[in-house]
Amino acid sequence: MDNRLFATRVQPDVPSRLDGLFPQLAFDDAIKFTAGAPAENLFPTEAMKQAYLAAMAKEGPHTFQYHTVQGPTELRERLAERARTRMQIESATVDNIMLTAGGQQAIDLVAKLLLNPGDAMVVEAPTYVGALSAFDMYEPTYYEVELEADGLNTTQLEDTLKAHPEIKFLYTVADFHNPGGVTMSVAKRKRLVELANQYDFLILEDTPYRDLRYVGESLPTIKHFDTEDRVIFLSSFSKVMMPTLRLGWLVASPMIIKQLLKLKEAADLEVPNLTASAVNEFLANNSLDDHIKALNKEYRVRQQAMVAAIKREMPAGVTATEPEGGFFTWVTVPDFINTTDLLYNEATPNLHIAYVPSKNFYAYKNHTNGMRLNFTGLMPAEIDDGMHRLGQLLTEKLTKVTD
Amino acid sequence: MDNRLFATRVQPDVPSRLDGLFPQLAFDDAIKFTAGAPAENLFPTEAMKQAYLAAMAKEGPHTFQYHTVQGPTELRERLAERARTRMQIESATVDNIMLTAGGQQAIDLVAKLLLNPGDAMVVEAPTYVGALSAFDMYEPTYYEVELEADGLNTTQLEDTLKAHPEIKFLYTVADFHNPGGVTMSVAKRKRLVELANQYDFLILEDTPYRDLRYVGESLPTIKHFDTEDRVIFLSSFSKVMMPTLRLGWLVASPMIIKQLLKLKEAADLEVPNLTASAVNEFLANNSLDDHIKALNKEYRVRQQAMVAAIKREMPAGVTATEPEGGFFTWVTVPDFINTTDLLYNEATPNLHIAYVPSKNFYAYKNHTNGMRLNFTGLMPAEIDDGMHRLGQLLTEKLTKVTD
Repeated sequence: MDNRLFATRVQPDVPSRLDGLFPQLAFDDAIKFTAGAPAENLFPTEAMKQAYLAAMAKEGPHTFQYHTVQGPTELRERLAERARTRMQIESATVDNIMLTAGGQQAIDLVAKLLLNPGDAMVVEAPTYVGALSAFDMYEPTYYEVELEADGLNTTQLEDTLKAHPEIKFLYTVADFHNPGGVTMSVAKRKRLVELANQYDFLILEDTPYRDLRYVGESLPTIKHFDTEDRVIFLSSFSKVMMPTLRLGWLVASPMIIKQLLKLKEAADLEVPNLTASAVNEFLANNSLDDHIKALNKEYRVRQQAMVAAIKREMPAGVTATEPEGGFFTWVTVPDFINTTDLLYNEATPNLHIAYVPSKNFYAYKNHTNGMRLNFTGLMPAEIDDGMHRLGQLLTEKLTKVTD
Repeated sequence: MDNRLFATRVQPDVPSRLDGLFPQLAFDDAIKFTAGAPAENLFPTEAMKQAYLAAMAKEGPHTFQYHTVQGPTELRERLAERARTRMQIESATVDNIMLTAGGQQAIDLVAKLLLNPGDAMVVEAPTYVGALSAFDMYEPTYYEVELEADGLNTTQLEDTLKAHPEIKFLYTVADFHNPGGVTMSVAKRKRLVELANQYDFLILEDTPYRDLRYVGESLPTIKHFDTEDRVIFLSSFSKVMMPTLRLGWLVASPMIIKQLLKLKEAADLEVPNLTASAVNEFLANNSLDDHIKALNKEYRVRQQAMVAAIKREMPAGVTATEPEGGFFTWVTVPDFINTTDLLYNEATPNLHIAYVPSKNFYAYKNHTNGMRLNFTGLMPAEIDDGMHRLGQLLTEKLTKVTD
């Protein structure tokens, strides 16, 4: 067949943005800072097994039948309560909760809801690579707004909105940014909602890591400050429970939910009832908060190891964000170092370490002096060892130049 | 928010094509011919429970982790073997099998692969309403080709192709058509592939009911006759196993699979590993063919009851297809009867029966003298009773006119 038959969104010879992010390293002493996956040894495996059995017992064969695109009312009630009490979304009710196939599908469906080819949207620079891969399929015009230590630069955002009043949509990871590791300040959250009201756009607030805070105090969600139903709040069970659930959930106005449900039904009919029912059983018979506390206790040790290793190992001229939660820290190196080249030519072949280079996290792939480091998938000793190697490599690169 | 923010594919005030197809009937003696769902009492419930437990035991916590968009090799090997031995797709290998979230997602992704807004495609008239709901989101120009007793009218198709050489894509349900109940002849299957080669378009062959044959001999798939990798063959576990698996699988050229995997990953990352692994365990430890035999034995009784009831109850002037398998028969009434009006004004309120009226199954909703009747969701006595009521109603309508 010829390429004439493909839609313009499909570029047969261009690899996916997700290709090659998670390399196999065939070295006995390999240390991978690439992980985006949660630690398996912390999964509530036995409790979920019991939850699946309980779901099957409760409804019998009907468990396995088609159900509805909305999903179980009981589960949506639990999620609405969680949104009210943990996410400060006081307006959440069973009617403005929607279930999706992981957070990824919610990102895809929101893009499908809003974007015609060429439509203008804002992404953070850097931003979540999986979101870019979803947005790409709707062929938007991206406007990038830089990420600062306290979240996206709202002054730069306003300049962008003034120059491009056609912007419809902004995507943000406000808590423990992937890949940036930073958290948006309360002042910027409020400002973002004001700008959305003034310039007439919608916000997708993606919060997969929000519950995973290791130090400091939780901040109110952006959705909490929403006054005109402009914020679509998205959470997921992938990082706080298990990825294979492929269960995300969002909170939005009933009118937006209604349109998204039509898109969901057209895309894959419904979330599997067995999954929805099993998660409902888990939530009924276990404390998700207690499970999250146990996760945070363990992840905090790894986060502290990473923070200490950065201080100890990174040479002057290299900066890193200090995440209070989530999975990642973001390292910035001097401009003359290309982190993609460094990875493939030196870090992996010589030092047997891997990270995700920055260009993958930019809509236009034009930033090459950063790297994303995961710390939740490694033990403290591995973090120490890997960061020592990385520190040596960077020190060497910087010394060569100043020689 | 204002509607300016929505993409053109979203029509906020237009109900989904899927709305209202499956009404609740609050009558003690209600009989619903509307079902699209398989009979729950025939589900392999205990075997699937054991399969889930086996999947969890096999990989331990890793079962619940992210895996890959391709899915388990072992499962794809089993499906490739099934494609070769049961679907006459001799070329099937582990590398041209893809897993999807039910057949519905495969339909969505194939449309996403091929269709820009305005692009030309062919659908049968009538066709599967869920496919239309997926296609709608890519805003194609539909060309309808009529369905005959031996499948779509290939002469009319060729005329359409001559008039519209820009056609890229054709969607067909060749075995036990939903909603038409008919099966495409071998001659037409061959002709369809010839036309695809000559006029340069792709075919999506959707076969959710293919294994559910109650009388007669199975025909080779369209994909069997494919000479230029133009046929995407789609199957699903929803009807032969259970809908909640949300597991579809397709066979296409590696080049098409590669593009579809990129779209799948952008849409929702991957099929849940737990599901894929559980289905693999089911297939390893049970005979799917034996299960299908048991289904067919039971469904055949219901199909025979429907065929007999049609002969017994339908007045002259009313015709019906005689399906050899699948879930549905299609009834055609004289033009002056509008089956939507008949349903809501008389059949349901007066006779407490429901069917799905024809307009839902046409791209342009402009056929109003047909109805889809399901027979697999009802016991023979219910079929007899419901068809007697429908026969009375239609006899009355026809008598009034001839009076």
